[in-house]
Amino acid sequence: MKAAIVAVGSELLGADRLDTNSLRLTALLDRYGVELRRKAAIGDSEEEIAAELRFLLPRVDLILIGGGLGPTADDVTREAVAAALGRRLALDEEVLAAIERRFEALGWRMPEVNRRQAWVIEGAEVISNPRGTAPGMRLESGGCTLFLFPGVPVELEGMTVDALEPWLAERSGGVARETAVLKIAGLPESVVEERIAPAYEQFGREAITILANAGEIRLQATAAGPEPERRARLAAMVARLAELAGDAVFTTREEDTLESVVGDLLRAAGATLTTAESCTGGLLAQRITSVPGSSDYFLGAAVTYSDELKVRMVEVPPAVLAEHGAVSEPVARAMAEGVRRALGSDYGVGITGVAGPGGGSEEKPVGTVHLAVAGPGDGEVEHRKLRLPGDRDRVRRFSAQLALEVLRRRLLAAAGGA
Amino acid sequence: MKAAIVAVGSELLGADRLDTNSLRLTALLDRYGVELRRKAAIGDSEEEIAAELRFLLPRVDLILIGGGLGPTADDVTREAVAAALGRRLALDEEVLAAIERRFEALGWRMPEVNRRQAWVIEGAEVISNPRGTAPGMRLESGGCTLFLFPGVPVELEGMTVDALEPWLAERSGGVARETAVLKIAGLPESVVEERIAPAYEQFGREAITILANAGEIRLQATAAGPEPERRARLAAMVARLAELAGDAVFTTREEDTLESVVGDLLRAAGATLTTAESCTGGLLAQRITSVPGSSDYFLGAAVTYSDELKVRMVEVPPAVLAEHGAVSEPVARAMAEGVRRALGSDYGVGITGVAGPGGGSEEKPVGTVHLAVAGPGDGEVEHRKLRLPGDRDRVRRFSAQLALEVLRRRLLAAAGGA
Repeated sequence: MKAAIVAVGSELLGADRLDTNSLRLTALLDRYGVELRRKAAIGDSEEEIAAELRFLLPRVDLILIGGGLGPTADDVTREAVAAALGRRLALDEEVLAAIERRFEALGWRMPEVNRRQAWVIEGAEVISNPRGTAPGMRLESGGCTLFLFPGVPVELEGMTVDALEPWLAERSGGVARETAVLKIAGLPESVVEERIAPAYEQFGREAITILANAGEIRLQATAAGPEPERRARLAAMVARLAELAGDAVFTTREEDTLESVVGDLLRAAGATLTTAESCTGGLLAQRITSVPGSSDYFLGAAVTYSDELKVRMVEVPPAVLAEHGAVSEPVARAMAEGVRRALGSDYGVGITGVAGPGGGSEEKPVGTVHLAVAGPGDGEVEHRKLRLPGDRDRVRRFSAQLALEVLRRRLLAAAGGA
Repeated sequence: MKAAIVAVGSELLGADRLDTNSLRLTALLDRYGVELRRKAAIGDSEEEIAAELRFLLPRVDLILIGGGLGPTADDVTREAVAAALGRRLALDEEVLAAIERRFEALGWRMPEVNRRQAWVIEGAEVISNPRGTAPGMRLESGGCTLFLFPGVPVELEGMTVDALEPWLAERSGGVARETAVLKIAGLPESVVEERIAPAYEQFGREAITILANAGEIRLQATAAGPEPERRARLAAMVARLAELAGDAVFTTREEDTLESVVGDLLRAAGATLTTAESCTGGLLAQRITSVPGSSDYFLGAAVTYSDELKVRMVEVPPAVLAEHGAVSEPVARAMAEGVRRALGSDYGVGITGVAGPGGGSEEKPVGTVHLAVAGPGDGEVEHRKLRLPGDRDRVRRFSAQLALEVLRRRLLAAAGGA
């Protein structure tokens, strides 16, 4: 089956808006093996929309149209589709009653303009829209099926789940594609690729994709086919990938983040955390506290941007600063240990580095970062020296990401040893 | 003049990539008063691209095509355009020599596949591409002009500046549109709209747009016409809007952020800053330190997530915490004053609140935030109580934004009083 997507709305032809509904629709088409041939964005012009549809009708089997079903005069998708197919529009009393009821429920009278939304194209099946006033439609013309959806993302999404997905599922005879994810932090993409190479051979290269972004790697495994086989294959792929990638995988749940996984480990251990941050300037604390309920395990942070505050807030010895400089292994270690002691937590993280663009030297170029993790108790402090590429923002984000990953591994080791 | 944009590349029909080149092209078309009628994304199919072009040729005056000019077999834009126009392709020796030189300069021999990129459509003018190997083309057919660009954003952008903009400027006879920006923080959109209403009457409603995002408002003024009049009109609009919006405008420079403006004010005053953060968890410090050179004025921060650390790090009296609770005016005031004193800065900011989703009560619902600014010296501490809508992330971002705005006004007042 070949498909096309048409996004209607003059705002989609401006310099600051893209049609994002098409991504949702594309993911759904992918799932059922439908090939997307083209996407178009068109303004609120009956003539332009109709011309596009006349162009598409002989070329594809499925046309998904989003937008232009509102109540105002510039919403002309209904008229354009009717014109392109040579069909009439008729007022549907049932649809009108539903729209009136929706307004009544909100305590308003239906404005006269909303009557427009009750006009239905001859031969169309109405798709109800519980999240808004504009109903959708499904209709057939020649060998082509057209779906009309409103452009409001939450309404369109709801209606694709209610009406488009079941239609696709039926047409595909239960054959679908499904994707599972494994998230990895702290390893370069090439290393992950090398580790999982045997899975490529076993399951096929197209079945596994690697996406890298800001120090995090997503492994996506995709399986297609009817229900029981598909699930079994997906489970086998995830198990194999997890085995190959090892403990670098921090989660197989889409909703998890590295900071939420670290938080879960701290909560499970009944342990508390504090951070001492120089070059990241609070970014690590901000990420940790972005997780609801993080006050269960996170006590606070010392952002020690100046040397003086490294001494005053987290007890870095002035002699160590003088001898090694602020960006050094001994200072990172002293920060991690000092923040743990000064603020009274089980674990402490210290980060110090040169984020740039200024402040670099031959010995310590921009991107030089030292991070350390202390705790639990007075055991060994763990240290990593990093040489990170990229600009200020990227150096800061990578530093926070890798600090979380070192902490996660330390928490895992502590849990395993308990 | 009517235009269409065609983005070529099968990756643009996947579930996670949108054609962003079109936004740049649209902004340029806007500038010269060219009306964009439609955008399309098409896969690497000669037949599909040619069909789209045959559809567009009689409908628009200008077609901008991006992508499909690479050296590999799936780059078929050259062939598709030639087919749609009924023209031949011929190897251009000059283009070939330029591609070979480019490889030589990098110390490589040109791979044989790159010869493809030297094929030029009959009648086309070649647009050189100093940032890559694929040259572009401009050609005329009937009343329509076609531009072919590579899809790599940096290459396309460079070539639009070198070749498309001058062409548009010439066709427009020097008439263009230009936009100026005024940025505002800390005021609701409706209040800004009310204040600037007289400017709508004076300059026309279409000439001024308001965009609100995350506690920040962008006022955009647009003027069109030939050079001297356009600039004069734009300057008059900016002056009038600045007068109406008053000191809520924190900058008229696109590159400024609220945190960079606050930093400039601190640097000018020779003053230092520290922050004490509870619900924002380091977000404010992170924003302040995202500005290069912020170590000139920012000393550090105390992220006092737990009550105990509010006492220990920034000297909030335990009796005040016990009597009023952590989310209260007295605690915010004590945090601002305490962090200034404990960490030794001229200014101190304190933020405490309920970011949610948990932790709210009838008296202090989610979104209740107290912020305070202390300094310079031991003068009056300024306090604001906020009731912010939205989820955890939004509450945190608004809190940091408004703290920066209160601080900015205090710095302005101090500078004015000096």
